[in-house]
Parts: sequence; structure tokens; C-alpha cells
Amino acid sequence: MKKWADEEYQGIVRTGFRLKKKLFKGKSPFQSVEVVETKGHGKLLLIDGMTMVSERDEFVYHEMIAHVPLFLHPKPKNVLVIGGGDGGSVREVLKHKSVERCVLVEIDGLVVEASKKFIPLTASKLSDKRSVVRIEDGVKFVKETHERFDVIIVDSTEPFGPAKELFGTGFYKDVRRILTKDGIVVSQAGSPFYEISTIQNLDRILKKVFPVVDAYLFNNLTYPGGLWAFTYASKGLRPVKDFSPARVKAAKLPLKWYNADVHAGAFALPTFLGKALGR
Amino acid sequence: MKKWADEEYQGIVRTGFRLKKKLFKGKSPFQSVEVVETKGHGKLLLIDGMTMVSERDEFVYHEMIAHVPLFLHPKPKNVLVIGGGDGGSVREVLKHKSVERCVLVEIDGLVVEASKKFIPLTASKLSDKRSVVRIEDGVKFVKETHERFDVIIVDSTEPFGPAKELFGTGFYKDVRRILTKDGIVVSQAGSPFYEISTIQNLDRILKKVFPVVDAYLFNNLTYPGGLWAFTYASKGLRPVKDFSPARVKAAKLPLKWYNADVHAGAFALPTFLGKALGR
Repeated sequence: MKKWADEEYQGIVRTGFRLKKKLFKGKSPFQSVEVVETKGHGKLLLIDGMTMVSERDEFVYHEMIAHVPLFLHPKPKNVLVIGGGDGGSVREVLKHKSVERCVLVEIDGLVVEASKKFIPLTASKLSDKRSVVRIEDGVKFVKETHERFDVIIVDSTEPFGPAKELFGTGFYKDVRRILTKDGIVVSQAGSPFYEISTIQNLDRILKKVFPVVDAYLFNNLTYPGGLWAFTYASKGLRPVKDFSPARVKAAKLPLKWYNADVHAGAFALPTFLGKALGR
Repeated sequence: MKKWADEEYQGIVRTGFRLKKKLFKGKSPFQSVEVVETKGHGKLLLIDGMTMVSERDEFVYHEMIAHVPLFLHPKPKNVLVIGGGDGGSVREVLKHKSVERCVLVEIDGLVVEASKKFIPLTASKLSDKRSVVRIEDGVKFVKETHERFDVIIVDSTEPFGPAKELFGTGFYKDVRRILTKDGIVVSQAGSPFYEISTIQNLDRILKKVFPVVDAYLFNNLTYPGGLWAFTYASKGLRPVKDFSPARVKAAKLPLKWYNADVHAGAFALPTFLGKALGR
């Protein structure tokens, strides 16, 4: 067996995690899906060889993608997660008592199956009575659904392969249509260091569709470069000015990363990124 | 030639940079010093095989270690950098017009020589007329010097090998003695993800010696895990409450990472780290 699960990125950098055991490898119509056990990072979920989830630090990504919009929306009841078949985002969404229903739309059933079987840390809440898991194309779902959502979380892979259309204007027009009046959408937006065009493109598209658009940062042990971004867009709520630190403190959720200071701090963009987004 | 400059960390993770050319390899009485040219990250300075500087992103580390204390001190004139033989911290310090003298105390002359010859991006300001480079032990220097400093920057390697004593109570008592009344000291404090004991130990020592102690975070492409920390300690100035965003805006320094929002945001500690530091 190989000693390291190595992920090469752009041909210039690679990150490797010490392997203990391979647990699962399968191929869906969309991609390869793999689960390995590592020494030091718990289990990893890999899609087409790229680490999507590490048990050691998945809490950062999932807390930041979920709690930033959910603590901004005055009373999120219906939440939609697109992608995110590992279940980590749903787990965080369901920590909010106001949430009555969280719909996960994942294109690849194999991601959900493998996560449920091997990574209960992220997937266990997919079986919660407030969770609805739909295995279908997120682009088609937002185009056709009659449901409405208070918060939409686009927990996607990179802007190629099955996730490509999640980085388009048409998709975000449909997202706006199915958002309620205080609606917020946040999206995985890549590495500002290595692939700044991803967030620049999303930012440009979102500005065409939403009156309020911003970006925020999070840290990750297993994504290349460590620093990655989310975009934020809403029908009106501003991510820092309309944020109430007191509400976070009062909620007393069991969290390891997100808190009121981190919420505001994450929107402090480094100068090079602010310039790249025309701020 | 090897295709990757791989750095293994704790036996559980490795980060590799695609090599183009080896430029220099030498051995001092303290450590091995190496400079390589990479595809995608410019030149790297490696000490005992660990990446200390990458041309692609060194600006983040050096801007954050220098401008946080220098924009807090009301008028920094004399600055001391301990370690940091690559010169990047000195370069940032000298962007402040109030600074009359920046003393660099580096134990290993080979680091300075190799940096001057191969990495002028960081080392060029070591020849500035306001710079004084002293090749000697920083611990001995702070114990014996009659000079006084407004800001001290401990730009050290990890807490073993030649840098070990830079992580001790005795050292910080000497640092306090040679700081002027508004004095500030900041120090490289390791990875909160992988080696939280480094910052916990420093935090405990600093609290014995200084009335104001805090920590702040920065991002790095080439240090394991991407997210690393600095400690902050002062004789009285508080890092966020006594900070003036207007002063940063007025200074208009040519910076790529640091700005007034980033200054405050960097002190927003994630919940797990705040707890580990007894906040």
C-alpha cells in the first residue's frame, strides 16, 4: 500500500497525509469516491483524488459555511444545501433550533452512501427527522422547485466536472428566485492564493444578481494553501453591519471554531484580495 | 534531481513544492541552510529541511509580524529583530518612517549570507543605512545590551535547536528590561492546529512577565496546516482597543496583505484556541 495520500495541485504543490488503511473506493457516473483512514487526520473523503473532508478539521469548513448565514438570517426555517453529500453542513445547520427542514440536494448518491457508512462524524444528521436528502442535480432542482428557502448553502467541489454549472449566472438567478425575502446564499469559492479567478468570477456573477455581495475566509488543513474563501450574497442583509454578536453568545451552540469575533474577522479581506474583487 | 522539495511534519503530513533548481546548500555550526528555486513558489529558504521563506507568500508573514506592533506603538524609533536572518521582517519595519534604527540579531551568519546572495526580495534592506546586522546569540544579546527598543520582533524558527532558549521565561524577562515604556514584543508561535503547546507555553510565560498578552493569526502557503500564530505582549498597549485604523489608512504603505481590517480580524481567535489559552 502507498504510504501517503498525496494530492497534487496545479503541478506546483502537493500535500500528503500518512495513510493507515484504505476503507472504500468506488466509481459513480460522476467521479471516483474514496475513503481512507490516516495517521493524524482521521478519515478522509476523497473525490477524484482531492481531499474533500478530513475528520480532524472538517469542523472549520462546516461551521463557517453554516453559521455565518444562519446567525445573520433573523429566523431561518427552511435551509437548502447543494452538494455537501458528506453531511457536515447539514449537521451544523440542524444545530439551529429555528430550522424546521434542511434539504440536501447532492448529485452523487455514492458520496452520501460512502459518508453514511464510513464517516458518521459528518453524515449522521442526514438521518435526522428534519433532514431531506435528494439525489439529483442541484442546478435542475433550483430551476424547477416550488419550495422556498431562507438560506442556501452551495457546498460544492471545484468549478469543473459535475459542479461546473454551479458557477454560472443562470444558477444564481434561480437561487434568488427560490430565496425568501431576507434570503442569503453562501458558496465555496476556492483558494484566493492559488486560484483567485474562482472567487473573482463568482463575485462578478453574484453582483449581477444580488444587491449585497461579500466574501469571507476560512482555514483548512487539507485544502491546498490552507486559506480558502466563501462568497456571501443576500437580498439585503449585510454580513457584518446586520450581525448581532449577542445572538451568537446567547445561542451557546457547541462549536469549536465559529464565534462572534471570528464571524466579523472572517470578512476582513487581505489587501490583495480586496483589490482583486474591486473593493 | 528530486522533483519535489518535501517537508514532512510530525510523521502525519507532508507538503511538497515542485523543484526547478537547487541554488545553494551549506552547513553552519547550527543547522543546514538551503536555497532552492521552485516552479510556482519562487525561491525557498530551507533550514534543516523546513521551509522558512517562500518568495510567493513571504509577504503575509513579514507584514503581519512587523505592522501589527509598529502601527500600535505611538512612535517606534528603535526596533530589534531576533532571528529573521532572511531580512523580510527588517524590510517591513523600515517601511515606517519613524524608525531610525533596526537591529537584526541572527545567530547564524550563513542564513544572512545565503539570503543576501540568493533572495534579495527579502534581504535587500539588510544593507539599508538604518539596518544593523549582528551575528550573535539573541538570548545573550538581550541579556547584555545597554540599548533600548520600542518594538522587539522574535522571528524565530521552531522551539528546538538553536531557537530553544527563545521560548523561555528568562529570555522574556530580558526582553521586558530592554523595552521602552510603550514597548511591544511579538513572537512566532507555531501552528495552533498541529502544535498548540507551543503557543500555550509562550502564552503562559508572557503572562508572567507582561500585563497585556494576546495572540493573533496569519496564513502561510508553506508552513504545515497553513494557519500559524504570533503572540503579542506589551507593557500596556492593547492590540485592538488601542489600535487606530485611521493611522494605517493615512500611512499608505505599499502592502499586499495587512490593512486596518486585517489587523483587528487577526486577533479574533477561534473558539478552540481561545479556550486553550484560558480566554
